[in-house]
Amino acid sequence: MIYLDNAASTMVDPRVVDAMVPYFGQMYGNPSSIHRHGRTALRAVRQARGQVADLVGAKPSEILLTSGATESNNTVLLAMNDSTDCHTITTAIEHDAVLEPCRRLERRGVCISYLSVDPDGLVDLDALESKISRQTRLVSVMLANNEVGTIQPIKKISKICHDHGVLLHTDAVQAVGKMPVDVNELGADFMSISSHKIGGPKGVGALFVREGLQLAPLILGGGQERGLRSGTENVAGIVGFGHACMLCMEGMKQNIMHYRRLSQRLVSGIMSSISHCKLNGSGSMRIPNNVNVTFLGIQGEDLIIKLDEYGVAASTGSACSVNVQKASHVLQAMGLSRDEISGSLRLTLGTNNTESEIDRAIELIKKAVFELRAVSPLRQKYGL
Amino acid sequence: MIYLDNAASTMVDPRVVDAMVPYFGQMYGNPSSIHRHGRTALRAVRQARGQVADLVGAKPSEILLTSGATESNNTVLLAMNDSTDCHTITTAIEHDAVLEPCRRLERRGVCISYLSVDPDGLVDLDALESKISRQTRLVSVMLANNEVGTIQPIKKISKICHDHGVLLHTDAVQAVGKMPVDVNELGADFMSISSHKIGGPKGVGALFVREGLQLAPLILGGGQERGLRSGTENVAGIVGFGHACMLCMEGMKQNIMHYRRLSQRLVSGIMSSISHCKLNGSGSMRIPNNVNVTFLGIQGEDLIIKLDEYGVAASTGSACSVNVQKASHVLQAMGLSRDEISGSLRLTLGTNNTESEIDRAIELIKKAVFELRAVSPLRQKYGL
Repeated sequence: MIYLDNAASTMVDPRVVDAMVPYFGQMYGNPSSIHRHGRTALRAVRQARGQVADLVGAKPSEILLTSGATESNNTVLLAMNDSTDCHTITTAIEHDAVLEPCRRLERRGVCISYLSVDPDGLVDLDALESKISRQTRLVSVMLANNEVGTIQPIKKISKICHDHGVLLHTDAVQAVGKMPVDVNELGADFMSISSHKIGGPKGVGALFVREGLQLAPLILGGGQERGLRSGTENVAGIVGFGHACMLCMEGMKQNIMHYRRLSQRLVSGIMSSISHCKLNGSGSMRIPNNVNVTFLGIQGEDLIIKLDEYGVAASTGSACSVNVQKASHVLQAMGLSRDEISGSLRLTLGTNNTESEIDRAIELIKKAVFELRAVSPLRQKYGL
Repeated sequence: MIYLDNAASTMVDPRVVDAMVPYFGQMYGNPSSIHRHGRTALRAVRQARGQVADLVGAKPSEILLTSGATESNNTVLLAMNDSTDCHTITTAIEHDAVLEPCRRLERRGVCISYLSVDPDGLVDLDALESKISRQTRLVSVMLANNEVGTIQPIKKISKICHDHGVLLHTDAVQAVGKMPVDVNELGADFMSISSHKIGGPKGVGALFVREGLQLAPLILGGGQERGLRSGTENVAGIVGFGHACMLCMEGMKQNIMHYRRLSQRLVSGIMSSISHCKLNGSGSMRIPNNVNVTFLGIQGEDLIIKLDEYGVAASTGSACSVNVQKASHVLQAMGLSRDEISGSLRLTLGTNNTESEIDRAIELIKKAVFELRAVSPLRQKYGL
């Protein structure tokens, strides 16, 4: 199987698994226990917190460990909009883990503005600034989009926010490990990170909360995470997340070059051998492991299923959206036609992919697209 | 190290670790992905959900997988009290994962009644019934207490609730695996379960939600768990939880006998060799792996630290309460004096503990208590 769905989830690095395993059967203490077992677990969480912080240029005390980026996003959005006179600005292309809490807030009477994007998937800075009002407390703009990989100008966005006394949250789930991400360089006040997108285990994530900022917890109880996130710490998961962050930082330069080389090979291979296709998203402002292509005349789902048969794992967009079976709101916001959206395929690279896998994948995509187009009802319409 | 703090967290069973590990490095798909990797992950989650359901007599569709019992408790309490005319009845001896959400609800204007308990830690059924009003939507009473192990008469409580059209939630975290727990037998409408208290990994839990009942999700996003709990499923953790449930069910009878034998040995060993001590909690309505003893004249924290030095891991009460450093609200509610509360020690048995460990632990507790009493300022007061 050629796995080209690393934006959905990555393989846990074997070194990460090795780091985690002792925390199941040997060092299984509860970090809140004051005996040796507890202290060992607490030290492990502390070390991991430092590793997560290091990866994004934060202080360990600014890292709130969560059950994943969805929880991180929910935490900041719900806490920052605790009354109906709050106003939050976000974008039309956020992940559902931002959009769904926003919809809940709207039902509660909170005002949410959704910024539109240009055909590359970029937000307009003037539009952002014009939407900021006295009620605006938070702007939430993702760093890199999960479907098309477009990187938003977060540094400029944070400048605008701070000029108006507004806080900035960025969902950096797909950006971390694919570009240098530094909370101070970006000027982020809150930032969501996920473990399972960077070679760590599922079920762990973090929320960066800039020093001095207060947040109401989403989950209350024993007062773990300095009262900000209760529940016994997922020690082994946190250790794995920390280790993945360390490996991610060590391998960053090399991985980015690797992604760039493979994605260029993949794009040029597809473009040169398949007609009527186009790359979605920005050419330049883009994370290097994302390739999103529209093949006119086919249904993305059919292509995924055929590719799966042929041994290639790919997706049409966000894995999460499969639960609700809807057309990509991201491609819609970028102005693609219905046919273009239907025919889109997302290929996302991982550190383990090889050049020969890419070459083989190109062949298989070509074969699958040709077969599907041969029976496409849109064959005439597009002259396929 | 003799680990007698299994109520804080248990060792992950090696068979559970073996079941989990392939889901890190080999079957790492996102259950929402439609390709092979995704379907494999989805099947694993489905199987685990069935194993969790089986352990408590529920249907798989009634099991909502969460990041832990704290999240489970928060989910039901917050969802069932979404307006200020709601009324919830709970007890004074719940875990903070119930009490803290209740305090948040009170700050929002929701009315919460806290039932007191008798010296054994049991709630009064007449008091419960008398507190039910037209506004009452939920009663939340734990099945077994985490500090003293007292088992509440949940079956009778659910009968009272249902006679008045009120729903019943029970936090069964400490009961599961230590007594037969069946949602239908108990008549529970909601029930919280934790993985890491029964030989599974930390960071996973479940909320039983009786068929036909609606709950607003706590965490929104990609719509996982049928929209009730968004966020990529913690596949390996869930697989581990499921496997732990299966092992727990298989070993239940044997484990309960084992707990009973060891706890009787522990209690009689302590009682026969140390003066001025008494067992806290109920003699009969008690989970078999919990021993909570007060040693007059000493500080529980000092005892824990000395025992840790001597190679015994124990606790004064809830591990989680260490974060806030306060006297046990459970022992307070049971009417113990300040000195009695200070001198309390919780010993909780696991499946791996042996008779010789218990004998050794008794010797070490005796030694530690004698040493601490020798320098106790309360030496005269209690004639130690």
